[in-house]
Amino acid sequence: MSRRDLLLRHSAWMQGSDSSTVVLSSRVRLARNLEEAPFPHVLSAEDAIKLEQMLSEVLSKVDVEGQKLSYLSLPELTSIEKQVLLEKHLISPALMGHQQGRGVGLIPDHRVAVMVNEEDHLRLQVLLPGGNLRETYKLATDLDDQLEKELDFAHREAHGYLTACPTNVGTGMRASVMVHLPALVITNQVQQVLGALTQLGLAVRGLYGEGSQAYGHIFQVSNQITLGKSEEDIITHIEAVTGQIVEHELQARQTLNKQARISLEDKVWRARGILANARILTSEELMHLLSEDRLGIDLEILPKLKTSFTTLLVDSLPGCLQYMLDQQLDPSERDEQRARFIRNAITS
Amino acid sequence: MSRRDLLLRHSAWMQGSDSSTVVLSSRVRLARNLEEAPFPHVLSAEDAIKLEQMLSEVLSKVDVEGQKLSYLSLPELTSIEKQVLLEKHLISPALMGHQQGRGVGLIPDHRVAVMVNEEDHLRLQVLLPGGNLRETYKLATDLDDQLEKELDFAHREAHGYLTACPTNVGTGMRASVMVHLPALVITNQVQQVLGALTQLGLAVRGLYGEGSQAYGHIFQVSNQITLGKSEEDIITHIEAVTGQIVEHELQARQTLNKQARISLEDKVWRARGILANARILTSEELMHLLSEDRLGIDLEILPKLKTSFTTLLVDSLPGCLQYMLDQQLDPSERDEQRARFIRNAITS
Repeated sequence: MSRRDLLLRHSAWMQGSDSSTVVLSSRVRLARNLEEAPFPHVLSAEDAIKLEQMLSEVLSKVDVEGQKLSYLSLPELTSIEKQVLLEKHLISPALMGHQQGRGVGLIPDHRVAVMVNEEDHLRLQVLLPGGNLRETYKLATDLDDQLEKELDFAHREAHGYLTACPTNVGTGMRASVMVHLPALVITNQVQQVLGALTQLGLAVRGLYGEGSQAYGHIFQVSNQITLGKSEEDIITHIEAVTGQIVEHELQARQTLNKQARISLEDKVWRARGILANARILTSEELMHLLSEDRLGIDLEILPKLKTSFTTLLVDSLPGCLQYMLDQQLDPSERDEQRARFIRNAITS
Repeated sequence: MSRRDLLLRHSAWMQGSDSSTVVLSSRVRLARNLEEAPFPHVLSAEDAIKLEQMLSEVLSKVDVEGQKLSYLSLPELTSIEKQVLLEKHLISPALMGHQQGRGVGLIPDHRVAVMVNEEDHLRLQVLLPGGNLRETYKLATDLDDQLEKELDFAHREAHGYLTACPTNVGTGMRASVMVHLPALVITNQVQQVLGALTQLGLAVRGLYGEGSQAYGHIFQVSNQITLGKSEEDIITHIEAVTGQIVEHELQARQTLNKQARISLEDKVWRARGILANARILTSEELMHLLSEDRLGIDLEILPKLKTSFTTLLVDSLPGCLQYMLDQQLDPSERDEQRARFIRNAITS
C-alpha cells in the first residue's frame, strides 16, 4: 500500500460512526517509555533518530488481527500529509513540533496508530467507531502485550508506568469518547451537562483537543486521572458517564421533537439546502451545518446521505481536502473547493 | 366573473414583470373630484354612499379595451379581501380607514383600478408590468376622457384639477415606477443613487408606500410635484431618471459579476437552497431571498422559475396567502404555509 493510499483511506472511526447516533468514536491511548532511554524531550536529535530506528523495527513486527503497521517518519512527510494525519486523529499537534526522530506507525484501517518520540517514547492509540470503549481497550492491551515482549518498559511497583509528564504516570492510559451533542447545544443545556464532569475527574475538549472549540457540536470526554485507579475502573467510569450524557442528549432531542418540531424541521432542512447549494463554505460553518444535518437524519426528518457525517467532516478539513485534490490551495480556494466537494457528496 | 375569481387573478403587473429586469412596473394615478360635491373627508356617511352609488354606475359603463369595470364596495368585503386588494396595489391604505361609501372598480386584468371616495372622489390608477410609463399614461388619459364625458370634474384655468390635498393640485397626476435594485443594495450604493432624487423633485418609497421599508430591494420612484408642469413633462422626467437608475443597477451587477463572482454565486445559490428547503419563512425574509434569487436568474447563474418574481412575492403576503388557501391563519401558521407555498413553487 502506497503512502498516498494509506493516508487517503477513511479511518475506521470515520466510516462506522453512523451506526451509533450520539457516540462517534472511542479511543484508548497508552503512554509507554523504555527503561534504558532518556525521555524524548531530553534526547539529542541523533539519539532520537537511533531510538526511532530501533522502535520502528519493533513496530514493523507487530500484528493487529492480521494487519501490519507501516511506519512513517515525520521528516519524510509533506506539511499537508502531516496535517492529514492530525485531522484524522492519528498524530497529535505535539508531534508536529519536533520532527527529527519522530514518526507514527499505522495499520491500513487506522484503528491502531503508534506515535514514536512524541512526549513519551511510545504512544499507543486505538480508535474505533461508535461507543465501544471496552473493545478499544482490549485491542490496546493486546498491542501493549506484543510490544512488552520486545521492549523493556519503565514501570515501578509503586507508581505504575513512568511517563514524561507526571499527569500520565500510573496506568499511562487516557480513554476518551467523542460525542455529538447538537440537541444539548440547541437547548442551551450543554454547559450544565458537561460542566459537572470536571468534578468527576473527567476532562471535556473540542473536536481537536485542548483549546479547540466544540465545532460541529462535537465534544471529547476523557479521564484526567491516570494514577491510583485501575484501567478497568477508568473505562467503567467513562462508560457510565457517557451513558448519562447520551441519555441527556436523547432527552433533549425528544424535547425538541415535541416542543419545537417545526423550528427543528426548518433548521435541519435549511442546513441541507445550504450544504447542497453554497459555493463558499468555511470549515467552521460546514461543521455547524453538517451537525444540524446529522441531527435531521438521526431524527428521520432528512433522508440519509451516502457518506458518513465524520467522513464529510474530516475530508473537508484543509489538509484532507488539499491532499484529496492533490493541490495546494489558499484559504479562499479551499472554501470554494470545500463547497464543491460537499455539494457533490450531498446531491450524489 | 365571481369576486373570488376577480381577486385571485394575478394582476397584469405581477405577470409580465420578468421581461424587464430592473423596472418591475409602471403606474399612473389621476386624482379627480366632482364640481358639485364636497371632498370625501367632509362628506357625511349618507352622502358618501349616495355619491358612491352614482359614481359606481358611471364606472360600470366604462370600457377599457373591451374590459368592463366590476365595482366592489368596501363594506361588502372581508378584511382578507381588502388586504388582497392592498397587497396587489389596487387600493391604498387610506381607503381602508373609512369604509362607508368607499370602494374600487376593477377590470379583470387589474391594469385599471378606480378608487371611489378615497382622498378624492375618484382616483384613477393604471398599473402595467415593466417600464412603460408612456403607455400607462395613455391608458389613464383614455379612461379620464371617458369619465369626463359623464362627470363634471372640478378644474380651474389657473390651478388645473382641484384636489382634497394641495400637493395633488394641478395635473392631479402621480406617476411612478417600481424598480428592483439588489446590486445597488449589495454594493452599498443605493442611498447615494436614490438620495439625489429628492433634489430632482422625486420621491422614493418602499414596496408598500410611504414609510414602508425597501423589502425585497424594491423601490418606488414617483413625482412630488403636480403643479406647474405638464403631464408629458412629468412622464419624460421620470423616464429619464429611471433610465439612469437602471444604468446604475446594471453597472453594479457587472461589477459584482466581475469582482465578486464567487460570492455572488454563493449568495444566490444559498437563497435558492433556503427557498427550496425552509419550513418557516417570514414575509420579510422571503422578499429578501426572492430578490437575491431573481438577481441570480437575471445574471443567468440560477435556472429560471416557472412563476414570476412579483407573483411569488405578492402571493405569499399575509392577505393573498390566506385568501388563496381560503383560511385564516395566525402569523406562525402563515410562516409555515408561506414556506410550503414557496417550496412547491420553487421545486415544481
